[in-house]
Amino acid sequence: MRLLEHTIQRITAPNADAYGAARERLRNQARPAGSLGILEEVGARLAGIFGTIDVRLDRKIVITCAGDHGICAEGVSRFPQKVTPQMVYNFVGGGASVSVLARHAGAEVRVADLGVDWDFAPDLPIYHKKVRKGTANFAAVPAMTREEAVRSIEAGIEIVDELTAEGPVHLIGTGDMGIGNTSPSTAIIAAYSNIPVPELTGRGTGIDDDGLRKKIAAIEKGLALHRPDPKDPVGVLEKVGGLEIGGLAGLVIGAAAHGIPVVCDGLIATAGALIACELAPSARPYLFAGHNSVEVGHRYMLEHLGLQPLLHLEFRLGEGTGAALAMTLMDAATRILAEIKTFAEVGINDAQ
Amino acid sequence: MRLLEHTIQRITAPNADAYGAARERLRNQARPAGSLGILEEVGARLAGIFGTIDVRLDRKIVITCAGDHGICAEGVSRFPQKVTPQMVYNFVGGGASVSVLARHAGAEVRVADLGVDWDFAPDLPIYHKKVRKGTANFAAVPAMTREEAVRSIEAGIEIVDELTAEGPVHLIGTGDMGIGNTSPSTAIIAAYSNIPVPELTGRGTGIDDDGLRKKIAAIEKGLALHRPDPKDPVGVLEKVGGLEIGGLAGLVIGAAAHGIPVVCDGLIATAGALIACELAPSARPYLFAGHNSVEVGHRYMLEHLGLQPLLHLEFRLGEGTGAALAMTLMDAATRILAEIKTFAEVGINDAQ
Repeated sequence: MRLLEHTIQRITAPNADAYGAARERLRNQARPAGSLGILEEVGARLAGIFGTIDVRLDRKIVITCAGDHGICAEGVSRFPQKVTPQMVYNFVGGGASVSVLARHAGAEVRVADLGVDWDFAPDLPIYHKKVRKGTANFAAVPAMTREEAVRSIEAGIEIVDELTAEGPVHLIGTGDMGIGNTSPSTAIIAAYSNIPVPELTGRGTGIDDDGLRKKIAAIEKGLALHRPDPKDPVGVLEKVGGLEIGGLAGLVIGAAAHGIPVVCDGLIATAGALIACELAPSARPYLFAGHNSVEVGHRYMLEHLGLQPLLHLEFRLGEGTGAALAMTLMDAATRILAEIKTFAEVGINDAQ
Repeated sequence: MRLLEHTIQRITAPNADAYGAARERLRNQARPAGSLGILEEVGARLAGIFGTIDVRLDRKIVITCAGDHGICAEGVSRFPQKVTPQMVYNFVGGGASVSVLARHAGAEVRVADLGVDWDFAPDLPIYHKKVRKGTANFAAVPAMTREEAVRSIEAGIEIVDELTAEGPVHLIGTGDMGIGNTSPSTAIIAAYSNIPVPELTGRGTGIDDDGLRKKIAAIEKGLALHRPDPKDPVGVLEKVGGLEIGGLAGLVIGAAAHGIPVVCDGLIATAGALIACELAPSARPYLFAGHNSVEVGHRYMLEHLGLQPLLHLEFRLGEGTGAALAMTLMDAATRILAEIKTFAEVGINDAQ
């Protein structure tokens, strides 16, 4: 059995007793029932994952997966592809957006090359997991081979295996870098919904009307050509996906197998999470949505996954920025559950 | 001239040059323009307030103002009034919801008694600013006298004066405690909008349909009886307001006079902020909205004030919980502005 299947089989369900005890404690806290909104369920789910009321998300890691995209030949992005490796160096240097927001959240950033069209020096401190130098143009041919699709997912799994071998990890955030990667992500949600491509397609890094028309045309062409089968998630990734999207799917499966919660970023990271949960529905209980991106396709992904995003800040950046910032709210959810006293503990009778 | 007028006259405008420099830096950072959504404007506004690109919100204080409400006689709340002083003790003890979320945000909680119907021991570590023991029932008589309304606002101003005398304060969050206080808050937004009371009225701590009918009837009765004039904010507070709401208005005016940004919590704290900005429009540039409460009237207050809330977590608790948690996003906004490198700094040409 290969790594992907083996890892999926290792995933177990969270602890239902701990989840139930958490819900009961939240209900009995000295405040109106339900008054801390969606953070209550976040706290209870984390209690189920860790099997305790007092969850401590001490070691938090944002993993930013990078890859290039042949679809750029269709004029779908306003940035040139060389920006992908340049941003990888920027992440390593600590001055990028995700570097700053992860530092704010008390998280570390790790960068992974899944398929950047660039030769990084072997001693650059990133995960060197290049499957190939960028995808092919999926408007003309499949983005990659089926074997490459599986290898990209397994690379994500390997990263989590290597990370946990260093020591315990309590929360993983997923982020992306890849010029052109809103196009494959949009193609993926199109394959999993019956919504027309024009309704799903956003402006990515900020293309103009002409660029938007080209992007929609390229995605529609790819979908018409390959007709990806939603029942075959690896096939969807192979035909219209991306190498970093495969890696992002692997991170979710790997995290779930290790019992680690994972918070996904925007359109691209959620495309990976969607592929992961289609492959392994048992991974879904470990998944949290960091934010609600401006990219319209993201909303449909979250609906498909049944996830409620934590932040609504009109971000449209990627890198893991929304996931990193959401980590502070997940920390807050653990404190709400563990530290707010109950009516009984403070000697107030609930008048209900 | 008395304290209120004197303090309003002390308010100056934020630094437009620092704001402009911040907007320019944000535009030049190595990411798509505008991609960090509403946190960009938060960062730029803070730069304007502090006159620097590198804002540090080192000392953050949540001030929770407490008061009781005669309107409770109309059956508008499911909790008895004695819960107000009990929760004051809970805040002091550090086990309340706002205590936990403020700790998470690196903020301190201070509690102020503006009008609780209870005798607190003089050595209880709270601000002892009781104007009177609870308001009168505004469905029958004015909530307080005009002099009491002014005194409650001035008590909030005094708190900021005392706090800043201890040392520099970089961010103030406003929160409330007062059984029954969604009713006066709803009456205030009704006075400032043309929206019918039933459309503005929420369930507060969780009243049932019968309680909701009573609450709407009580608010409508008070408004019909007193006809508060929106051009006279002190009169609105006097007729249908609350003592802690006056204190919360004073905190906003006092913070603005000291050049300190202030982030308001939900329905009640924002009712205070609304009164403050009606009295002193020059305070508005110092004001931020922490979150979007489930209480429907809150949305109309934010629209009236032209504020975009930072969090959308379906909170409906008060105490300052939403303000406290939003402080972490305001910290993030300062780091985004100061730390994300520009295209020039990282040697990437913006392809735009």
